[in-house]
Amino acid sequence: MITIGVADTTFARVDMGGIAIDELKKIGTGFRIERYTVPGVKDLPVACKKLFVEKNCDLVIALGMPGAQEIDKMCAHEASTGLIHVQIMLNKHIIEVFVHEDEAKDDQELKFLAERRAREHALNAYRLLFKPEELTRLAGTGQRQGFNDAGQIR
Amino acid sequence: MITIGVADTTFARVDMGGIAIDELKKIGTGFRIERYTVPGVKDLPVACKKLFVEKNCDLVIALGMPGAQEIDKMCAHEASTGLIHVQIMLNKHIIEVFVHEDEAKDDQELKFLAERRAREHALNAYRLLFKPEELTRLAGTGQRQGFNDAGQIR
Amino acid sequence: MITIGVADTTFARVDMGGIAIDELKKIGTGFRIERYTVPGVKDLPVACKKLFVEKNCDLVIALGMPGAQEIDKMCAHEASTGLIHVQIMLNKHIIEVFVHEDEAKDDQELKFLAERRAREHALNAYRLLFKPEELTRLAGTGQRQGFNDAGQIR
Amino acid sequence: MITIGVADTTFARVDMGGIAIDELKKIGTGFRIERYTVPGVKDLPVACKKLFVEKNCDLVIALGMPGAQEIDKMCAHEASTGLIHVQIMLNKHIIEVFVHEDEAKDDQELKFLAERRAREHALNAYRLLFKPEELTRLAGTGQRQGFNDAGQIR
Amino acid sequence: MITIGVADTTFARVDMGGIAIDELKKIGTGFRIERYTVPGVKDLPVACKKLFVEKNCDLVIALGMPGAQEIDKMCAHEASTGLIHVQIMLNKHIIEVFVHEDEAKDDQELKFLAERRAREHALNAYRLLFKPEELTRLAGTGQRQGFNDAGQIR
Repeated sequence: MITIGVADTTFARVDMGGIAIDELKKIGTGFRIERYTVPGVKDLPVACKKLFVEKNCDLVIALGMPGAQEIDKMCAHEASTGLIHVQIMLNKHIIEVFVHEDEAKDDQELKFLAERRAREHALNAYRLLFKPEELTRLAGTGQRQGFNDAGQIR
Repeated sequence: MITIGVADTTFARVDMGGIAIDELKKIGTGFRIERYTVPGVKDLPVACKKLFVEKNCDLVIALGMPGAQEIDKMCAHEASTGLIHVQIMLNKHIIEVFVHEDEAKDDQELKFLAERRAREHALNAYRLLFKPEELTRLAGTGQRQGFNDAGQIR
Repeated sequence: MITIGVADTTFARVDMGGIAIDELKKIGTGFRIERYTVPGVKDLPVACKKLFVEKNCDLVIALGMPGAQEIDKMCAHEASTGLIHVQIMLNKHIIEVFVHEDEAKDDQELKFLAERRAREHALNAYRLLFKPEELTRLAGTGQRQGFNDAGQIR
Repeated sequence: MITIGVADTTFARVDMGGIAIDELKKIGTGFRIERYTVPGVKDLPVACKKLFVEKNCDLVIALGMPGAQEIDKMCAHEASTGLIHVQIMLNKHIIEVFVHEDEAKDDQELKFLAERRAREHALNAYRLLFKPEELTRLAGTGQRQGFNDAGQIR
Repeated sequence: MITIGVADTTFARVDMGGIAIDELKKIGTGFRIERYTVPGVKDLPVACKKLFVEKNCDLVIALGMPGAQEIDKMCAHEASTGLIHVQIMLNKHIIEVFVHEDEAKDDQELKFLAERRAREHALNAYRLLFKPEELTRLAGTGQRQGFNDAGQIR
């Protein structure tokens, strides 16, 4: 059976992994879920690699909430670089769902943003595995996850 | 038969993938096209890798439209690094066609730029596969894709 | 027997490796420890790789104290990138415990921070190996190592 | 026979590849040259990899002229990272000859700089292959390619 | 017999490679030295890789003197990233000895710094190979190479 991995962190201030799992279950069936929680975003690349090779995942959703400081931006960059590296080693997608603390004006907006981005990217993950033609139909339409879509330029 | 991959995103605000395909068909024959659409530019490296190993592509055109903010620049950098990594793993070209939102002064110019750059790079892709001697003839002549050529220094 | 590696530096101004070992011994049993000290943080990636392949470590804690200048930030970035690379080569965790000199307002706070972060990450290392379910229970709760936890957004 | 690859771009505003080839022919014999022209500097890493594995090159000179804007600096960085990666994959040298547009005060100086740097690095390439002892003799003497040598500190 | 590689550049303005070799010979015996000089720091990663695989080195000291400009900082970063990559490919240490031109206030201080750092890191290299327990004894004591030690926080 298709297996979707969910890798998340104890650093995040919202249970993004739990939300992604909730959304996946609402979207469809035909897959099972493996969850793996690590301390921070820099632990996510190997967590994803382990989900692929030890838990036979077909795709992983990697969720994290980098802080607002310069050093946090660098951590997020290092994590993202690692996530891309894992993907091209294995030819499997990792959907990165990062919400930066300074994207939101306060805690409530941060929570809203984290939840909505996690849910919308859970749908992207589902589409990549089960309905890639839906993504092709949306090509070049300015989709965004979390805040409003930018839309296609007419 | 030679296969050209076209990897694009739902994030872009112009259907750059569709435009590249349109241009390829105008330029020549002797190849078929495989298209793969993913959410954003950071998903492009693995998309290209999959096009090479799962769809037998000989070259991939990877198109995306990174946003104007600092974080978007970093995403583009991570994507580009991954695209180069895939190329050197497989000894195959990926023609990166990125248009940054802040390269244009308004939506209409952005659309114009995205279309023209996609078309001009489709020609580069074709040349790499079928007419590399045309590129050698243009060596050091200040070619640009999108805006006007810079030209050779006399 | 499970083996935990501890890689540290002569550059750090606090014996972070010794503190991590002390904490590991307080936390539990069922593992042995291998320590390897190198000059600076840029030597840590290969130190960890050697601990994994030459000393059969199952997880490594890598501790360092990058300086406050721009060049030191870059060294830390290069080290972190290498640490992530080693992890995904081997499918093993490296818990990075870096304390930047400019995170603290004076030497005493720096020492306090280095000790507390080393101890809290020793616990994270233990959990990854022996009690991963404890980390899942803490997912999205805003854990921090060193300073106070940020906490979950309600 | 020893084969020297020359990888250059259509983006450059001076025929740096042609100049490097001209210089190589003046310097010596005992080698043949393979040239490969690609659109821009980000295409150079895979071009070099192909020259090594498909054309049996023993060393490649990679020439490019990154633009003056921030985005161009990032492209050059990504290209350089890829060029180093190719070298360590294959244990072969790539002599990178990049001239940044903002290194020169006007077009004529840029042309002068591009030509002189290409010629001086062609000599470096030749030395690495045929006369490495000449480089050892120059160790620590402040050699520069293009502008004047900095010289050794007495 | 244990072999120590010394990789240096013609770009440096002080014969750092020669100094490191001089120091190694003063420190001890039981090893032989292989020297390899390349044009600049970006050529060092492959130089080290070649010293390991073609000359059977057990450890390499890589010495360079990056310039003071932004572009030089980037070159140093790319070189460092490559040096770490080579180390984790081969499980061998490369002791990077870089002196940035702007670390010193004038040429004489630069020369002093380059010499002292090269000598102190030659000792680190020797310890890694022959006396690792000396490094463990110095863990967390704020060692510096070149300028004065920072010392341990009491």
